[in-house]
Amino acid sequence: MAKQNDEIQAVVWHDDKLYLLDQRQLPNKETWLEFERPDDVSQAIKDMVVRGAPAIGITAAYGIVLAAMQAWDVAGVRWKQAIIPPIARLLKSRPTAVNLHWAVDRMRALYKSLPDAIKPETALLTEALQIHDEDITANRKMARLGAALLPDECSVLTHCNTGAIATGGFGTALGVIRQAYAEGKLNMVYVDETRPWLQGARLTAWELDKENIPFSLQVDSAAAYLMATQQIDWVIVGADRISSNGDVANKIGTYMLAILAKYHGVKMMVVAPTSTIDWQLNRGDEIPIEQREASELTHFNKQRLAPEEISVFNPVFDITPAALIDAIVTEKGVILSPSLEAMRAIEEQ
Amino acid sequence: MAKQNDEIQAVVWHDDKLYLLDQRQLPNKETWLEFERPDDVSQAIKDMVVRGAPAIGITAAYGIVLAAMQAWDVAGVRWKQAIIPPIARLLKSRPTAVNLHWAVDRMRALYKSLPDAIKPETALLTEALQIHDEDITANRKMARLGAALLPDECSVLTHCNTGAIATGGFGTALGVIRQAYAEGKLNMVYVDETRPWLQGARLTAWELDKENIPFSLQVDSAAAYLMATQQIDWVIVGADRISSNGDVANKIGTYMLAILAKYHGVKMMVVAPTSTIDWQLNRGDEIPIEQREASELTHFNKQRLAPEEISVFNPVFDITPAALIDAIVTEKGVILSPSLEAMRAIEEQ
Repeated sequence: MAKQNDEIQAVVWHDDKLYLLDQRQLPNKETWLEFERPDDVSQAIKDMVVRGAPAIGITAAYGIVLAAMQAWDVAGVRWKQAIIPPIARLLKSRPTAVNLHWAVDRMRALYKSLPDAIKPETALLTEALQIHDEDITANRKMARLGAALLPDECSVLTHCNTGAIATGGFGTALGVIRQAYAEGKLNMVYVDETRPWLQGARLTAWELDKENIPFSLQVDSAAAYLMATQQIDWVIVGADRISSNGDVANKIGTYMLAILAKYHGVKMMVVAPTSTIDWQLNRGDEIPIEQREASELTHFNKQRLAPEEISVFNPVFDITPAALIDAIVTEKGVILSPSLEAMRAIEEQ
Repeated sequence: MAKQNDEIQAVVWHDDKLYLLDQRQLPNKETWLEFERPDDVSQAIKDMVVRGAPAIGITAAYGIVLAAMQAWDVAGVRWKQAIIPPIARLLKSRPTAVNLHWAVDRMRALYKSLPDAIKPETALLTEALQIHDEDITANRKMARLGAALLPDECSVLTHCNTGAIATGGFGTALGVIRQAYAEGKLNMVYVDETRPWLQGARLTAWELDKENIPFSLQVDSAAAYLMATQQIDWVIVGADRISSNGDVANKIGTYMLAILAKYHGVKMMVVAPTSTIDWQLNRGDEIPIEQREASELTHFNKQRLAPEEISVFNPVFDITPAALIDAIVTEKGVILSPSLEAMRAIEEQ
């Protein structure tokens, strides 16, 4: 029986405080940061201490618990007014991941129903812990559903980090890979380093290495040559937001992989909980795409890589049209050849 | 009239010594290294002090001048025997670029014809300088031929560095871009950063910035999204070796770009002198592909980016089939829709 380590976590609530594993320091240092104020949580999301759409959603839920504790301390029975500004700042911390909005909306629906005169911490913490637990449960279900799509002795290519530390635990796309390995059907994981933030090299490699899952690292632009020269059965990625027709916003490079997969006859799987689906949006091109600073390309740890003050195109995400995707795996089931109809069928389950 | 700076050079012979601009230090420092021994030149090629197929060929030609000087000093009239080992080491310094072999073969044909009893330096240096001058002349001609293929107000995407410092001067693909800018028909150059060595960010951006040619830098995996969302008319790249049917070995990522260009209706241009063509090879998959050390992916300037001792796939080049290429521009003319027949027609000119 293969070892199936699911103890890696990056978001932990303990003793009235939120702890985040500082993912910017990995794989060199495993540093935990402690949070007591909601605005510090917003800044941590913005600074990518924590990243990955599901992990951002869970972190925001705990952030609202901290906001409620602070609001109660400051404003007492008027805490529902005092909580509004820090929540607005939480919502603005990253623009693309819809899980953030989903988690905030869920927490907000709850706190609005609470009595003004009772300290809200316990009720809200219970809900945040529930969101966290549901995420792990969803990941385990998606892992089984996704792994069932893979052939025996398969090799897969993945992009960015969609593992335990990008989620509440276990992972989305990397959860499928963990499960396939546990089931003995996985030969090799090819990991894109995933510029500019190197989530593949720093985080996915770190998770796979910890669990002795066989993997190999390559630069992102080698994916095409890899598909032409090595056995690759599936590309497996996560999602930051999915529009109602099945278009997928995910880490920059995902759209590239989908085109290359189609060209080489490799299949393309997106693994994401239904909280990632934005039913308000008809098409992927309506998804706001976050552009980050030029310094992510021009510098590495303060070392300069390029001339000063140059123009940079640095979108964090891109949009993969549904037509290039073979399967979207959710906790409610698998959507093959995604379309509005197929997506709605999952929603109505 | 647009400024057309063609004074950037990376390979200079002066006063019985070879000087190489240390491209590993760019854009932070412009350091020149001085060479008097051919084995140091071999090591410099291997260590990528100098890179780019044409620049490697020219450097090797000067390396043979140094080898002949050393052989004459050590062995006198028996210099033709003494020169063999350092030339063998020069040939082994990089496996993929055929210009290296081409230049060494040309220098060898000359020195074999020289009398044993006369100091060979002057004759060999004349030939090396001639190889260098011919390269610049070829680049200027290719630049005009390539620029003529571009529409007005065009935007192009380029990969790696194919500029003045990758050649004897002016550049191949970047020569076409320089020329298009000088002719007033270029709106924008999108530059792939080109992992793992970042030739795009460090070198191409440096050359374009020096000449005020408008450009923007992106991660390699953003090329697909760029093609989907911005105007890109042509992808323009160089080549390290071209087989007789028109398949192209070039910097890892070129094959990816060719597939993405085809998918988006963007045209694909390869700019390379005929010395890049290996008439011995029928197909691209016969071209040896250099694999470099894992540390190029796992470290950046000695900072660790990934877990220790992991498996890495690090081919320096990939193979783009002729069918994905719209034009190969050589100094003998343009080959549209490359094929064995079209390639032979150029050879016979």
